[in-house]
Amino acid sequence: MNKDWWKWGDPTELKHMNDYPKAKAFLEDLWKTNFKHEYSPPNKFSIEPLTEKKKDTLKDIFASLTSKKISFRDEERVRVALGKSYYDVIRLCKDDKIVTPDVVLAPTTNEDIEYIVKQANDHQVKLIPVGGGTNVVGALTMQENNSKNNLKATINLLNYNKLIHIDEAHLTATFQAGILGPALEKILNEKGFTLGHFPQSFEYSTLGGWVVTRSAGQESSYYGKIEDIVEQIKVVTPIGTLHSNDYTHDASGVNLLQLFVGSEGVFGVVSEVKVKIKKLPKSSRWLTALFPSFEAGANYLNELTQNDLKPSVVRLSDANETLLFAKIGSEHNEVSFIDNLKKEIQKFVLQWKNLTEPCVMIMRFDQNKYSVSPQILYAKSLIEKYKGIVAPSIIGEKWAINRFKSPYMRDTFVEHGIYIDTMETLVHWKDVQQVHQALTKNLKKSKAFNKEQGLFMAHISHVYPNAACMYFTLVTPMHRGNEIEQWHEIKELVSQTIVLNGGTISHHHSIGADHQKWYLRNADPVGLQVLKSIKKILDPNGILNPGKLFT
Amino acid sequence: MNKDWWKWGDPTELKHMNDYPKAKAFLEDLWKTNFKHEYSPPNKFSIEPLTEKKKDTLKDIFASLTSKKISFRDEERVRVALGKSYYDVIRLCKDDKIVTPDVVLAPTTNEDIEYIVKQANDHQVKLIPVGGGTNVVGALTMQENNSKNNLKATINLLNYNKLIHIDEAHLTATFQAGILGPALEKILNEKGFTLGHFPQSFEYSTLGGWVVTRSAGQESSYYGKIEDIVEQIKVVTPIGTLHSNDYTHDASGVNLLQLFVGSEGVFGVVSEVKVKIKKLPKSSRWLTALFPSFEAGANYLNELTQNDLKPSVVRLSDANETLLFAKIGSEHNEVSFIDNLKKEIQKFVLQWKNLTEPCVMIMRFDQNKYSVSPQILYAKSLIEKYKGIVAPSIIGEKWAINRFKSPYMRDTFVEHGIYIDTMETLVHWKDVQQVHQALTKNLKKSKAFNKEQGLFMAHISHVYPNAACMYFTLVTPMHRGNEIEQWHEIKELVSQTIVLNGGTISHHHSIGADHQKWYLRNADPVGLQVLKSIKKILDPNGILNPGKLFT
Repeated sequence: MNKDWWKWGDPTELKHMNDYPKAKAFLEDLWKTNFKHEYSPPNKFSIEPLTEKKKDTLKDIFASLTSKKISFRDEERVRVALGKSYYDVIRLCKDDKIVTPDVVLAPTTNEDIEYIVKQANDHQVKLIPVGGGTNVVGALTMQENNSKNNLKATINLLNYNKLIHIDEAHLTATFQAGILGPALEKILNEKGFTLGHFPQSFEYSTLGGWVVTRSAGQESSYYGKIEDIVEQIKVVTPIGTLHSNDYTHDASGVNLLQLFVGSEGVFGVVSEVKVKIKKLPKSSRWLTALFPSFEAGANYLNELTQNDLKPSVVRLSDANETLLFAKIGSEHNEVSFIDNLKKEIQKFVLQWKNLTEPCVMIMRFDQNKYSVSPQILYAKSLIEKYKGIVAPSIIGEKWAINRFKSPYMRDTFVEHGIYIDTMETLVHWKDVQQVHQALTKNLKKSKAFNKEQGLFMAHISHVYPNAACMYFTLVTPMHRGNEIEQWHEIKELVSQTIVLNGGTISHHHSIGADHQKWYLRNADPVGLQVLKSIKKILDPNGILNPGKLFT
Repeated sequence: MNKDWWKWGDPTELKHMNDYPKAKAFLEDLWKTNFKHEYSPPNKFSIEPLTEKKKDTLKDIFASLTSKKISFRDEERVRVALGKSYYDVIRLCKDDKIVTPDVVLAPTTNEDIEYIVKQANDHQVKLIPVGGGTNVVGALTMQENNSKNNLKATINLLNYNKLIHIDEAHLTATFQAGILGPALEKILNEKGFTLGHFPQSFEYSTLGGWVVTRSAGQESSYYGKIEDIVEQIKVVTPIGTLHSNDYTHDASGVNLLQLFVGSEGVFGVVSEVKVKIKKLPKSSRWLTALFPSFEAGANYLNELTQNDLKPSVVRLSDANETLLFAKIGSEHNEVSFIDNLKKEIQKFVLQWKNLTEPCVMIMRFDQNKYSVSPQILYAKSLIEKYKGIVAPSIIGEKWAINRFKSPYMRDTFVEHGIYIDTMETLVHWKDVQQVHQALTKNLKKSKAFNKEQGLFMAHISHVYPNAACMYFTLVTPMHRGNEIEQWHEIKELVSQTIVLNGGTISHHHSIGADHQKWYLRNADPVGLQVLKSIKKILDPNGILNPGKLFT
């Protein structure tokens, strides 16, 4: 196993602290410290060893799978046992009692999946589906299996990743669930189409993973969240394979499709997904602006959504994020995003002398057969009402170039003793400021967050007529020796603050192990009974992703 | 009971055959007949009499309801026992063994509804919810109750019809489920908003009814079908009241909202509905065209949907409907829709000499803060590609004025021995022509439809990137003495032809009793088990709308 196996992304893209000179200098100065490489996962994890007896039992149970499709190797078992959150990484570094599956199964056909689910069900093997493994809220975290045989298998869908069919006349495409974002986009792009689904994890996450976690892409305000994009689904369950209705917009009884969107694998293994696709836009046009406050920018966006504007990318940074971008956002010397931003902020501060909290907003409109100019003109005309100014569109373009890069920095930061986590919520517009202010206030009082030393940034990244997705980045020195407790304390504080102020526990990260407490507190009691009755019928032995959601 | 109680709509708007002189002349000539008033419902129906014992039992069960909220009157019982389809009307006229409830309950509060559901559940009273009673596929048709006590109640929601809250900042509004279309629109319009949901039944159907039948409005291509419009729901079930999630676009587990959309009352009584609203458009712009064939027009619409155009109204008539409109559509002498249409068709035929099947298309774009001109320009520019010509927009405007009127004509026709029914489907674009041709062919061979004597017309009325809703109107002389059998034969033929050629059994009419056979044939077996498990948990005694959907 390569020593960097646990890190995000492309190994040739890995970064070192010196690749971030501005950030390093800024944080070292802020915290009066010198960063050292302090954290790495151990070479060997103290995971439960796999007995030969268990191995033989599992080999027998899954006897029809060829040896390429079944792996008992420790590194495989660890690799699929956690996602890609800060908490996952720090748990790896601390060798924190990681529960792994006994075996990793890698189907390549739908028959394989049906076989695996059937065998697992017949033999009481717990079954945890994994796609790209990029979840950041503990969706892959396993529990010890309490059943007698204590057998746990992960079904890794990454090799079940082919296009099944593109239907150009109907703008739909059907894929196997394990396909990764870039492979899927490449297939569609070559034919002139796009899915328009670009979560930050895009390069390493799968279609099936998006569906079961209710994923959102950075362009979802135009292309929709995955729940809007998915058209039809095939799900392998212990009692058989279910197909949702042929049409999403007919009146032929209840359509069960949405039952599986966000189901996190507890009802079945999503095997095939038919999605709505769109023609590739011929061009994209950016509109960038600065607002005197986060509130002004948010109110601006609220008004746009109320008038049916459909930008693809929308992102409004709060003052902290805007200023941090201006200070450390670009680590290279080209005329960049940041240089432009700095200049703009100066202009802006000159123009509105008593306003000191500039907030940058970027917005992109995708255009194909008809012009989006009226939308852009309207959006532009409204900026002044909220005391904003238009800024150069290069700010948006630069953001787009770097939009999948930040996870690399995260891993480097962790190695150097820096806590860095992200959280998010969907919240009604009326509560946006309240959530922002309450988090700011509570974090400043939090010892775990090192009070005033911690950096707290927010942006709005997805907008609806009734709500906005707020995304938070938290950076502070790690508490050496108490890293896990520190994480728990901050997670508890942030989640509790969000929920108490009207936000939902997640807009696109999902529930997983990390949000389950809040999910259950908030869940409708009759609704829970419905979910449990569905679970009982589809998964009578309770083998599927035990412990997740309401199980 | 007024003798016209069974008819559609506003009694002051009722029509007589002489109000349709052109249609009368045309059909009399076509069928070599003279229409006479032949059909009326009887003054008294041979329904099961309500025994005093039953009445007393029911009074005891629902003892807490004030006398205004409980009715045992025969006319009330008959009124809620059927919908407004041709089949319903002819069954009334023939006094065709109509099964009625024993009692009609009319709650005015959510507590009333909870009380009624609880009492019905505790005492095994079957409970059929009714809103406006305009369903046309037998959604209100009742079965004899097989339980020992054989008690049946209808819960009529028409008096539970208030606005609960308009949230202007978030473009949502919450209403009690029994509110009728015009009352709802009036409330919203006064504040500058609209729901944009205008089914043909708009004036007499309810919000709750729209939700449980997956209704579509005539402007749904822009405003969405009811499944897109509904944001949150409150449902009273025998085991308690369920609220769906606060947000539709979060990632907080499975959202159960869509389970109840199209549920036809089998899971619970929908009591409150929060809907997305939009700002009233400032203006609307029509684009009207003639195409040389139905196929050309359909291909044109398919291309528009693929490029994300969002007209509100879309309607493409086939050649039969276009020509019939031109002949009999306008019964008044003003310069009208029809006169214009006639002129246009003449021009058109001159221009494309060998094309003899002109098809009219109307399309409306709603405009508010930004111009829809680019969309209209693009839509216009594409007409030529499909060999169409632009026609005067008055054709669209006239259609809009009369769009809720046709049910009046239906009742008059029935009185005069004319079979007139409508059916509809959602079908992938590739199968549109096939469905159209197969229906044309099969109906021409159908004795029940009087072969060549029957008039068969179609239009496309709702469009999606992958499918179109096709709507059919069938007119032919009734088979005196065999009216019921005639209806069954034609219904069977049309439904079977639709389904065999790739259409779904309904796009917006729902399943009801009339489509249940096809629904069950097509339903996913594992999906059916899921639905039944939900039914079992929510309605353990099976009191809710027995016999509908999968029950």
